[in-house]
Amino acid sequence: MDPTTLRELLESVARGEASTQDAFDALARLPFGDIEEAKVDHHRALRCGFAEVVLCEGKSPSQVRSIAREILEHGDVFLGTRASAAHFQKVAQVASDARYFEEPRILLVDRRAERPALGHIVVATGGTADQHVAEEAAISAEVMGNRVTRLYDVGIAGVHRLLAHIDVLREANAIIAVAGMEGALPSLVTGLVSCPVVAVPTSVGYGANLGGIAALLGMLNACASGMAVVNIDNGFGAAALASRINQMVAKA
Amino acid sequence: MDPTTLRELLESVARGEASTQDAFDALARLPFGDIEEAKVDHHRALRCGFAEVVLCEGKSPSQVRSIAREILEHGDVFLGTRASAAHFQKVAQVASDARYFEEPRILLVDRRAERPALGHIVVATGGTADQHVAEEAAISAEVMGNRVTRLYDVGIAGVHRLLAHIDVLREANAIIAVAGMEGALPSLVTGLVSCPVVAVPTSVGYGANLGGIAALLGMLNACASGMAVVNIDNGFGAAALASRINQMVAKA
Amino acid sequence: MDPTTLRELLESVARGEASTQDAFDALARLPFGDIEEAKVDHHRALRCGFAEVVLCEGKSPSQVRSIAREILEHGDVFLGTRASAAHFQKVAQVASDARYFEEPRILLVDRRAERPALGHIVVATGGTADQHVAEEAAISAEVMGNRVTRLYDVGIAGVHRLLAHIDVLREANAIIAVAGMEGALPSLVTGLVSCPVVAVPTSVGYGANLGGIAALLGMLNACASGMAVVNIDNGFGAAALASRINQMVAKA
Amino acid sequence: MDPTTLRELLESVARGEASTQDAFDALARLPFGDIEEAKVDHHRALRCGFAEVVLCEGKSPSQVRSIAREILEHGDVFLGTRASAAHFQKVAQVASDARYFEEPRILLVDRRAERPALGHIVVATGGTADQHVAEEAAISAEVMGNRVTRLYDVGIAGVHRLLAHIDVLREANAIIAVAGMEGALPSLVTGLVSCPVVAVPTSVGYGANLGGIAALLGMLNACASGMAVVNIDNGFGAAALASRINQMVAKA
Amino acid sequence: MDPTTLRELLESVARGEASTQDAFDALARLPFGDIEEAKVDHHRALRCGFAEVVLCEGKSPSQVRSIAREILEHGDVFLGTRASAAHFQKVAQVASDARYFEEPRILLVDRRAERPALGHIVVATGGTADQHVAEEAAISAEVMGNRVTRLYDVGIAGVHRLLAHIDVLREANAIIAVAGMEGALPSLVTGLVSCPVVAVPTSVGYGANLGGIAALLGMLNACASGMAVVNIDNGFGAAALASRINQMVAKA
Amino acid sequence: MDPTTLRELLESVARGEASTQDAFDALARLPFGDIEEAKVDHHRALRCGFAEVVLCEGKSPSQVRSIAREILEHGDVFLGTRASAAHFQKVAQVASDARYFEEPRILLVDRRAERPALGHIVVATGGTADQHVAEEAAISAEVMGNRVTRLYDVGIAGVHRLLAHIDVLREANAIIAVAGMEGALPSLVTGLVSCPVVAVPTSVGYGANLGGIAALLGMLNACASGMAVVNIDNGFGAAALASRINQMVAKA
Amino acid sequence: MDPTTLRELLESVARGEASTQDAFDALARLPFGDIEEAKVDHHRALRCGFAEVVLCEGKSPSQVRSIAREILEHGDVFLGTRASAAHFQKVAQVASDARYFEEPRILLVDRRAERPALGHIVVATGGTADQHVAEEAAISAEVMGNRVTRLYDVGIAGVHRLLAHIDVLREANAIIAVAGMEGALPSLVTGLVSCPVVAVPTSVGYGANLGGIAALLGMLNACASGMAVVNIDNGFGAAALASRINQMVAKA
Amino acid sequence: MDPTTLRELLESVARGEASTQDAFDALARLPFGDIEEAKVDHHRALRCGFAEVVLCEGKSPSQVRSIAREILEHGDVFLGTRASAAHFQKVAQVASDARYFEEPRILLVDRRAERPALGHIVVATGGTADQHVAEEAAISAEVMGNRVTRLYDVGIAGVHRLLAHIDVLREANAIIAVAGMEGALPSLVTGLVSCPVVAVPTSVGYGANLGGIAALLGMLNACASGMAVVNIDNGFGAAALASRINQMVAKA
Repeated sequence: MDPTTLRELLESVARGEASTQDAFDALARLPFGDIEEAKVDHHRALRCGFAEVVLCEGKSPSQVRSIAREILEHGDVFLGTRASAAHFQKVAQVASDARYFEEPRILLVDRRAERPALGHIVVATGGTADQHVAEEAAISAEVMGNRVTRLYDVGIAGVHRLLAHIDVLREANAIIAVAGMEGALPSLVTGLVSCPVVAVPTSVGYGANLGGIAALLGMLNACASGMAVVNIDNGFGAAALASRINQMVAKA
Repeated sequence: MDPTTLRELLESVARGEASTQDAFDALARLPFGDIEEAKVDHHRALRCGFAEVVLCEGKSPSQVRSIAREILEHGDVFLGTRASAAHFQKVAQVASDARYFEEPRILLVDRRAERPALGHIVVATGGTADQHVAEEAAISAEVMGNRVTRLYDVGIAGVHRLLAHIDVLREANAIIAVAGMEGALPSLVTGLVSCPVVAVPTSVGYGANLGGIAALLGMLNACASGMAVVNIDNGFGAAALASRINQMVAKA
Repeated sequence: MDPTTLRELLESVARGEASTQDAFDALARLPFGDIEEAKVDHHRALRCGFAEVVLCEGKSPSQVRSIAREILEHGDVFLGTRASAAHFQKVAQVASDARYFEEPRILLVDRRAERPALGHIVVATGGTADQHVAEEAAISAEVMGNRVTRLYDVGIAGVHRLLAHIDVLREANAIIAVAGMEGALPSLVTGLVSCPVVAVPTSVGYGANLGGIAALLGMLNACASGMAVVNIDNGFGAAALASRINQMVAKA
Repeated sequence: MDPTTLRELLESVARGEASTQDAFDALARLPFGDIEEAKVDHHRALRCGFAEVVLCEGKSPSQVRSIAREILEHGDVFLGTRASAAHFQKVAQVASDARYFEEPRILLVDRRAERPALGHIVVATGGTADQHVAEEAAISAEVMGNRVTRLYDVGIAGVHRLLAHIDVLREANAIIAVAGMEGALPSLVTGLVSCPVVAVPTSVGYGANLGGIAALLGMLNACASGMAVVNIDNGFGAAALASRINQMVAKA
Repeated sequence: MDPTTLRELLESVARGEASTQDAFDALARLPFGDIEEAKVDHHRALRCGFAEVVLCEGKSPSQVRSIAREILEHGDVFLGTRASAAHFQKVAQVASDARYFEEPRILLVDRRAERPALGHIVVATGGTADQHVAEEAAISAEVMGNRVTRLYDVGIAGVHRLLAHIDVLREANAIIAVAGMEGALPSLVTGLVSCPVVAVPTSVGYGANLGGIAALLGMLNACASGMAVVNIDNGFGAAALASRINQMVAKA
Repeated sequence: MDPTTLRELLESVARGEASTQDAFDALARLPFGDIEEAKVDHHRALRCGFAEVVLCEGKSPSQVRSIAREILEHGDVFLGTRASAAHFQKVAQVASDARYFEEPRILLVDRRAERPALGHIVVATGGTADQHVAEEAAISAEVMGNRVTRLYDVGIAGVHRLLAHIDVLREANAIIAVAGMEGALPSLVTGLVSCPVVAVPTSVGYGANLGGIAALLGMLNACASGMAVVNIDNGFGAAALASRINQMVAKA
Repeated sequence: MDPTTLRELLESVARGEASTQDAFDALARLPFGDIEEAKVDHHRALRCGFAEVVLCEGKSPSQVRSIAREILEHGDVFLGTRASAAHFQKVAQVASDARYFEEPRILLVDRRAERPALGHIVVATGGTADQHVAEEAAISAEVMGNRVTRLYDVGIAGVHRLLAHIDVLREANAIIAVAGMEGALPSLVTGLVSCPVVAVPTSVGYGANLGGIAALLGMLNACASGMAVVNIDNGFGAAALASRINQMVAKA
Repeated sequence: MDPTTLRELLESVARGEASTQDAFDALARLPFGDIEEAKVDHHRALRCGFAEVVLCEGKSPSQVRSIAREILEHGDVFLGTRASAAHFQKVAQVASDARYFEEPRILLVDRRAERPALGHIVVATGGTADQHVAEEAAISAEVMGNRVTRLYDVGIAGVHRLLAHIDVLREANAIIAVAGMEGALPSLVTGLVSCPVVAVPTSVGYGANLGGIAALLGMLNACASGMAVVNIDNGFGAAALASRINQMVAKA
């Protein structure tokens, strides 16, 4: 049974064409998400890889190509995260307008008309080595329709630059703070602003940083309140949360 | 030097009463947070225990009494988290209007005039055993001036009740989802709504739940995007973040 | 809307008493589990504490009493796991026929008519100290309608007694093997029989047993195939799985 | 002494050809598994690599070739798991009919006559990246004589497809549910069916997934009861357990 | 079938009183360990609690009393480790000659005739806080018939005393070295002697000692070769190994 | 042989009273630390419990009393760390001038003449709950002859007070920075001064702080350079290192 | 606003050229570290990568080249740690006088005039495999202006050589002790000298050394007091701390 | 001072050629291990890499060549463990009689005259993949002068073969049992014999075996007593301990 036919099913019951027993049986098996109005399941699926945004890592290039083709048949945007050059080459076979961002490993096909970027999300990072994670966050947030300002460490100025741009920080509806090592940046940023802060621990560091666990634990145990944490190196996840916040404020 | 006198200092320089060298020396030592306009340091201090909100655990009852007395001399609200009955008794000696919430272990003195609660935060939990963490979140959020709806497991219905109240969920500006064991609730909730979700892992469970680490890891690795995580059992931290989000939307 | 009224809803649509739009709206919010036929959600809820089987640990005695009262209003059996004496006393106030098994910490109210126990589940344990976990499994399995044979270490004979009862082991449809320390029993049992084996690691031991993690890891890495593992000390969980297996075979 | 000669040994004692002392000495050293009737030890050995099923990882191609040759001298089926292409090439030298399944890394020689596949095992996975583990399970189960249905994520539909195939799920005697990240699939499946569910955590994910530990912990702590867990990425182990269940039901 | 009757069984086959089929069936179920000559299973059982040496922790006082009674019916020595005073009181009811060593928590009934202690085992410890573990090792070793010399830290001298007794160390057939904190003693001792050294990490320490894991890891990674490690605080285990070594040398 | 007689031994060789062979034999067994000049071994022993400073935890009150008596027979100061009231009571029996500091759990007998405190060590802590660890450090440092300034969080000001006392910080020869939760204080302090900083992680916090491991990891991974870390809650260890630094500078 | 203009700003206020409001606004945003006198932020930044010392790992060669160019425009020394040959090649394009130390992976440009090396730091290591970490420490310390003596294991003598050079050890103001495996060297050294010891655990070893965690834990739990620990393999961090100590003593 | 001159020193004191003060000063710095008689330090050094046995991993080929050359100048045997082919090639330049065992990664130069192998050590392993670790143990033990019997899994028979060779096992003075996965072999062997057993966990396995930690924990928590454990994959360490045992028995 086609899920969009719930309304039709009810109407056929109303018209006496379907028995209540048939309708009952059909409904008992009907997935919640198939109910016409409920787009939520598609929404929820974002990260799991079967709609619009696809985690490419762990999938073969051919698999990603198939998924991209299917998504682009029904939609006009495809965002692949953690994509390799091999993923890109396969996808480019079915979408010649595919673009590949090498450092953040993002694979993008965007055929939508120009849209105004809404609100304001700041993506901050103190260390150059955290930049690829920050870019995953920034590009993902832009693809989701948000206006994004990058505050990366360029050259010598670190905390300096952060504070020099305090006006930018204070205009943000949400801030994504990316940091490795002991992961202190989000805590610092949270103390400077009143908007929500999304902390992204990175695997940058060595020794007892345990692949980012040290930064993750530091952020979870931060004194500063008003922040929350996503998985290690999960720039996309931070963008998805910041986008929810920013879109709500921008549309309020 | 009294931090609020920055403006006065500058004026005395302007009036020629202070030398630039004296001003320079004073400024070189002036903490950033003492600058009049910058309330942020107080904001940042919230969780660390030296302003308004105090983590009582690890402090002696006498220490908490001293802190409460000092805070209430300058302000009209004191919120103590993880407070014991002994903490309450000592604080009641200096604040007869202190209230104690036993299960969430909250100690509250609130002398503010009645204020309208802003916006809408939903605090959800499926399991009865997670309730004390959820209450820490809910009361904290209310003290911070947010309108809060509780969606706790009452009786048999769990997911049932959640879905039955989907209208409530969809009206929220932010949802706090509290869960122990495998920690699946936040992921489920995130899939049902478009507002940001703050996930709180609890230490409820046994065996390989590792004091809440299993729930924490589950939430960090959730497929659903649009959520972030605070520390295990950290109801207050979730409230602080949800409050930031809700206040921004409500005031937008 | 009352979930059991799905059929009625459809009938009122069929009778023209409800509009299809009203029905559509109701259905869009209707939890899957509320559909009459689908007992699965209740089934799934077993362990989460809102249906028949309640994990008492982490809940106050009053909370458990309320839950028990509600369950017993609609049903005739209540099984509480990890219950304390205090839980029992409160529940006994609303169910004078409540029984308490002290060592396995089980709280049981069973008002069902005598039923024949089906099939055959063996619960085996080599060490006396594992017995309370094994009893949680055995009693739970019995409450679920299975015939259970206990093969506990009584006195000196361990492996001896196991092998002496190899006929019993080979008649089982499922075996629950409970073990602490290095957790070798399930692997041994799996090698002796052809039925499925459910391994339960216990927290029995000391030092680097890490609260049962050593036994859990040992079982997960066992050479023997044909077994699977539940959480540390989770006798109930093992019973639930063994019951599913045994009921399927017995009813096949 | 050849183990199959137990019966002969007894007969030679009966005929007075062997002294009871000789028989006693022989028996004192006779491994249990060598007793003719007791095939169980061979069964137990399955995963350890000395009978029919061989874990190729960690063995050199030459070693695997030797083992395969020896197994195929006495039997008509050889199943190698976690085999590399190099393993395959060596084995193909002694078994030209060897087949290699690249993604699940399975090496198979099957010279048995066509046999009907018994019962019904469903192998389910939501994510494309979990597929190679699922295939290890599915092919292993088929080799063991079970009828297998694959419910993999093909394209966009995930939960959707699962629910759309709920009839298939409900016809299964056992379900193998394979999942990475937070590992929620088995819990979801367990709530939908009444047959036993074998959960396989995979190492798919990144950051704090800890090589599959996060999924493993999630499954061990799942609210749903009626499931058990095998080692991370252990598709074969899941198949072995599911096969035991399915064969018992099918032959009951 | 009574296991000691293997010889009889063979003889009845020889006499033609039992059919070979009956004998075959009996043997197929006969546990290996029951074969008269093979005392090994009893040997192996030592630590698991069903023969002579019983780990009391995790067992109720009544259970230990039952086990002690049974052991003492057939033998003349009972050694209980990790026993509480409550265990002792119960056992004293059935064995008035039971002795209790409070600090090492050992419960002993020894009715054997005086025997000469063989060979030489040294039990060394640098820290006073490790003494209870060392005593568990020393008493256990003595009960097993070994001559034991204690080299405990008495007063100020630590390494001093160790070196002052280097003659004693060099006369030992085996040395048990007990240490907490960073666990360096066994490594030091191993460098001073040529006999085997059994290292026992203790849970003494705090902070990042992780309940003895730090000492355990230190010992496993020691530069010195000629030593091996037992479980944290496992004085008995060390004694059992040292006893095997000492008995072999003494009887060589 | 009495170690202080090395010089005498050599002299008796010089006088021809001892043969070179006897001297050789004696020397072969002479512990290095016993050589008259070499006080280092006593120094090294400080923390291990057999000289002057005794870790009381894990020792019985009677054992500590014996050790204290022995130390005070030869010296005029006894410092016990992690002492309980019971330890104090026993020691007071043999040293009526013993003092007990309850919160830092320090037991002190100091019969030395008044000495000038040398140099300058600052002990800083932001949180009230870290105070007992800081006091262990401060008192220990004072007992070792160092001038100590405490910069504890008193009342509302945290970072504020730290910065307000920047002159004090800059006058220090060494700073001990004590912190729990994410452990950011030492990193902050290190950035403000040019003297060495000793970081002490505390077990203050909850949830994923893992008993201080989070703070420890944060400090080990800190961006700031010029600091090092001691064990969790190890105030004494920090004092011992800071004392070495301060004494060197003060005496330079 | 240029940070060095604070004095100018104050002077322009004093001259009435700037309004107090403008000055207030400027100051509210002025980073603390920009205040002329306060070099501390630059100091603190050392390790974070934006001043003089740059952690190259995790940065692309081009990024490091840009940073080096910028640093060398304003200064005359650039120190890159954990640099690859690719990093070196890029930097050599903008600094032909760049030198590369392959084993310790150090990239150095030093254009300063010859300066006398101050004080005395000893870098000790017992194992050849720890040498690259020790060299990172030694070269870093030299670049920071300290006199450094290396005590590496050359050939057969280990502890031998250490003791043979005890005079050198005792002349040091600070000792850096580098060790892998169980990490016992720093504890040994600390017992031989009275100066502070900085312990560097290395990832040398295998099995349960857990990438250096075993050595780290051993050092944190060492009996010897007077030492502290830096991150695994963090030679530079040890040098920075030892330099602080040595410079203080040398300049006292 | 040359350590072998202790005797000479004493003699020169006896002859009055050296003053007692000079002798005292010399002795105060004399390392214990340099005292002529005490070979123990060389013994202790075995594993650390500066005497006869060298852990090649982590050392450059050139470094190993230098060490080998130096060792072979003074001795007639060089044993390198964990050596790569590159190590071998460099060593072959200075020792043309060097042999390389590829799988166990052993590098051997043995110029000693034929010696009778003493006693009896059995090296057992059930899985083919554990063989390289077992060979490291076996060859090391042989180099140390022990007679070694290998009981490896050849073909199908595992436990079978072990039991079939029970006579061999019972003739051993020490058994090295090597196992991965759940690490059950040593426990099984310990139950079959009365000699000491050295357990070697291997990193063989996958998923939650955690690189051998699962096997290590299993062995540490084994019920069987009479065994101890060395580091993961540490075949050499097991050989060193077994050699100590075997030599003692053989020479008793």
